[in-house]
Amino acid sequence: MGEEVNATVFRNQNRESDNQNLEFDIYPLSSYYFGSKDAIPFKDHSLSDRVLRMKSNYAVHGIRTCVEAVLLVELFKHPHLLLLQIRNSIYKLPGGRLRPGESDTDGLKRKLARKLCVNESGDGSEWEVGERLGMWWRPDFETLQYPFLPPNVKQPKECTKVFLVKLPMSRKFIVPKNMRLLAVPLCQVHDNHKTYGAIISGIPQLLSKFSFNMIES
Amino acid sequence: MGEEVNATVFRNQNRESDNQNLEFDIYPLSSYYFGSKDAIPFKDHSLSDRVLRMKSNYAVHGIRTCVEAVLLVELFKHPHLLLLQIRNSIYKLPGGRLRPGESDTDGLKRKLARKLCVNESGDGSEWEVGERLGMWWRPDFETLQYPFLPPNVKQPKECTKVFLVKLPMSRKFIVPKNMRLLAVPLCQVHDNHKTYGAIISGIPQLLSKFSFNMIES
Repeated sequence: MGEEVNATVFRNQNRESDNQNLEFDIYPLSSYYFGSKDAIPFKDHSLSDRVLRMKSNYAVHGIRTCVEAVLLVELFKHPHLLLLQIRNSIYKLPGGRLRPGESDTDGLKRKLARKLCVNESGDGSEWEVGERLGMWWRPDFETLQYPFLPPNVKQPKECTKVFLVKLPMSRKFIVPKNMRLLAVPLCQVHDNHKTYGAIISGIPQLLSKFSFNMIES
Repeated sequence: MGEEVNATVFRNQNRESDNQNLEFDIYPLSSYYFGSKDAIPFKDHSLSDRVLRMKSNYAVHGIRTCVEAVLLVELFKHPHLLLLQIRNSIYKLPGGRLRPGESDTDGLKRKLARKLCVNESGDGSEWEVGERLGMWWRPDFETLQYPFLPPNVKQPKECTKVFLVKLPMSRKFIVPKNMRLLAVPLCQVHDNHKTYGAIISGIPQLLSKFSFNMIES
């Protein structure tokens, strides 16, 4: 019954949600090319460096906004999330901090070019920045992030917005030598706070409303 | 700086997401009326009853689809989620199982009428069933639910779909006497698997992309 039942379920889902774009294609890992380029220097060497830098930036620019991308590929018929691995233990979504006055989309395209393309100076038209999936708030410099503005917090220090970025059928990823780009199965990411942190480990939930068309090679 | 900064952040968000409906109004708890009606008999008295019933239903109808509603109210300037409490320890989103052939929207309206309205025979037009927020799969009768179809699962036994249901400025909730309707703050629900289970404890994340306009009384 399996395959047939699924097809019926998916049809119902789509009928129900005509005004929601709930279906998209993901392509096999093997249809992408991965290469490397010169290292990007890390800005912080420790957590306390990071807090100091956040504080001095906040004093000048106010709240810091980060934008991050969810990029998916297919492997073994299961969706995999592309993550940057730094110093063997830190996993990050590709993205980074907006410049003052920069829009979410422009900033995310700039960051994706810097971390995933051979050339930083492209016009960004090659990245299809899609819907916002979630938004996390950091109430103070040294606190955790929450998927809501906690009660009584008037001056959050950081807002991180996560966007779906749909990949084309094929492309090149050129990654700085001091980072690794990994494809991690959603089933491994799910609920795994310890390894991936609160934001990444919740991404399978944020994606759960979608039906993926997995295009096999 | 607080209030002003937030306003700027929210304006940026909206500019970025013109084709996404990311803003909505929530109204104070005090603008709703809560009453009670006759008890609804529970179908299962134990977990093993439930598994037996799922198995016999699956043999006849195939995969079971459940639809559940996320209903929000404002209290102390923080969004609160409406949950049904059963037997003092079980928390559920209002909703339930679809009948064979029933659409998600029709089924959810029927279930909301049964559990939250004085009259079960309304036409459902009073409920504004909005976008699908997430979808969870149960690979086998006695397993956990996952926000993706796990690899190699061909015949999932249950699919639970969670929908946003926007409340009007005022309404009556009439709840069966053997249940309680509670307004629980998002900050208490977040990440609290132990009390609320995997689906409910992830709802703050599913809602995090939205900006709430909290209309105070």
